[in-house]
Amino acid sequence: MEDIKLKLRAFAQERDWLEYHTKENLAKSIVIEASELLLNYQWGSVEKDVLNVKEELADIMIYSIMLADKYGFDIKEMIEEKIEKNAIKYPAIKSK
Amino acid sequence: MEDIKLKLRAFAQERDWLEYHTKENLAKSIVIEASELLLNYQWGSVEKDVLNVKEELADIMIYSIMLADKYGFDIKEMIEEKIEKNAIKYPAIKSK
Amino acid sequence: MEDIKLKLRAFAQERDWLEYHTKENLAKSIVIEASELLLNYQWGSVEKDVLNVKEELADIMIYSIMLADKYGFDIKEMIEEKIEKNAIKYPAIKSK
Amino acid sequence: MEDIKLKLRAFAQERDWLEYHTKENLAKSIVIEASELLLNYQWGSVEKDVLNVKEELADIMIYSIMLADKYGFDIKEMIEEKIEKNAIKYPAIKSK
Repeated sequence: MEDIKLKLRAFAQERDWLEYHTKENLAKSIVIEASELLLNYQWGSVEKDVLNVKEELADIMIYSIMLADKYGFDIKEMIEEKIEKNAIKYPAIKSK
Repeated sequence: MEDIKLKLRAFAQERDWLEYHTKENLAKSIVIEASELLLNYQWGSVEKDVLNVKEELADIMIYSIMLADKYGFDIKEMIEEKIEKNAIKYPAIKSK
Repeated sequence: MEDIKLKLRAFAQERDWLEYHTKENLAKSIVIEASELLLNYQWGSVEKDVLNVKEELADIMIYSIMLADKYGFDIKEMIEEKIEKNAIKYPAIKSK
Repeated sequence: MEDIKLKLRAFAQERDWLEYHTKENLAKSIVIEASELLLNYQWGSVEKDVLNVKEELADIMIYSIMLADKYGFDIKEMIEEKIEKNAIKYPAIKSK
């Protein structure tokens, strides 16, 4: 994950894209990619194109990693904290 | 990442939620969480609540990992393939 | 508006699309079109293509009218009720 | 529709909200409301709360009318032009 974060930073830097990668623009980009993923299920529950699902999912994760990086969030910690919070909010016994 | 994947599987299983976690429902969930992230930038470019940004980003990544898991995608490979594809689509020299 | 509602019904019927136009699928479609609209502002506040903005906005309204029609909502009444509710929630004096 | 447009203009003006209602912010707002609508179908095809569906649909249309107004689009014309364009793109005979 650390390795991917560095790759993404270099990628943007080499293209002079950093000025476009504001937090707000990255947040918009995540929604846009998430909707492109949803397009695969617009008219039914079976995706039209598995390869496209994979690419849209990758785009969502790429922009999410970039946004986490802008804030200096530790991604593994961020996810584990949220899982723990959800475990308290939805106790296994009551949530069945 | 492999560890998080297993935690998320156990979390859903313990709550009998697997039947709700269809690919389509997870895709909808990613869009919904992405919009909740965007809510932080609805009226301007500065977020209202950094903690909320962190939690919404975590939710987006959690649902994305769960959906990747449903398809059996290797997440690291999936992201690296997309970065490589983008590098070909947007050559550094021409994209400045 | 009544006239547009009837045109949209006929349009779907003539193409045998009614079975795809479930409430859920129309709701997904509205999000998808709204994201295509947002694409015009992904990297900045000035739209790339005014004609595209117009078409995406039309698509959002078309799916919204179709979904309102599925529920039998009166569109004019629905909007006016929401404006009144907002006026109570955000009194002019306090909301400046 | 013309009447609703004027009401929405006055509503924003009375609250000094016009400076927040940029085209970009309205576009974000439409996506956000569309996702709140989708929340009703997150885990299945039957909505949780019809009244909420009605209110979210109203919000989507309110922001859409406001954005159309910013661009000076005639809403009825905008929708009818798109229906005609779709009729050419998807001829009834071939689209069954």
